[in-house]
Amino acid sequence: MVNFQSPVLDRTFAALADPTRRALLARLDEQGGVSVSDLARPFPVSLPAIMKHLDVLSDAGLVTRKKVGRTVTCQLKAEPMEQAMNWLAKYERYWTEQLDRLAAFVEDDSWQANPASPSSAASKRRPKRSTKPGPSRKK
Amino acid sequence: MVNFQSPVLDRTFAALADPTRRALLARLDEQGGVSVSDLARPFPVSLPAIMKHLDVLSDAGLVTRKKVGRTVTCQLKAEPMEQAMNWLAKYERYWTEQLDRLAAFVEDDSWQANPASPSSAASKRRPKRSTKPGPSRKK
Repeated sequence: MVNFQSPVLDRTFAALADPTRRALLARLDEQGGVSVSDLARPFPVSLPAIMKHLDVLSDAGLVTRKKVGRTVTCQLKAEPMEQAMNWLAKYERYWTEQLDRLAAFVEDDSWQANPASPSSAASKRRPKRSTKPGPSRKK
Repeated sequence: MVNFQSPVLDRTFAALADPTRRALLARLDEQGGVSVSDLARPFPVSLPAIMKHLDVLSDAGLVTRKKVGRTVTCQLKAEPMEQAMNWLAKYERYWTEQLDRLAAFVEDDSWQANPASPSSAASKRRPKRSTKPGPSRKK
């Protein structure tokens, strides 16, 4: 049986699966300590809907809320994302290897299109002594 | 209004929010081209449940399925994870800065506990010539 439980990863990935929640985190990244009403303003959804999204983010440990007087301010806590990023990093070789292969193909392709290019480029830089009829030594 | 739509991120994060699905991807990473029944074997869930998880992974573009004869084999396609990792990378400074602060605190703390430590450590490495009474030049 496989041991694959990780409640932190479950909650982090689930919280990040919603575009409004990702946008809320992005706004909190730009301006820390925003009130809930200020945070909700640019979104085309109701304040209660934003509050529910903040509950999900708070349960995932990605946002903290603090009440000062009558205002609730929110703060980003990005630390749980580290575990998610470490999980994804194990698969990084799949897309970096693909890029390496593409780069190798492009390099190889331009070589085949002009196989003599490195030497011909070098010869272009060289003064054309051999093609110029020079003074014959036999004269 | 904030533009925050990204169906690829929605599907990728949602697919990764389940521990069984993450474990399926980990198994496919270890052994590419596994049949569905082989893939399902170590999991304490039914084959239909595994099939549903594979549907979610397939919709997210994280798994491809291929039928050869009567056997369906699965293959990992990790590329959609790249966008998810790039999204998370924007927040990386939060936990790296925290680590830097911790390292600075530990360094500062050990310095305060033994302020003369760098020089005293150096003097311990040096042969104790000055403490040994050497031959006096006045003799």
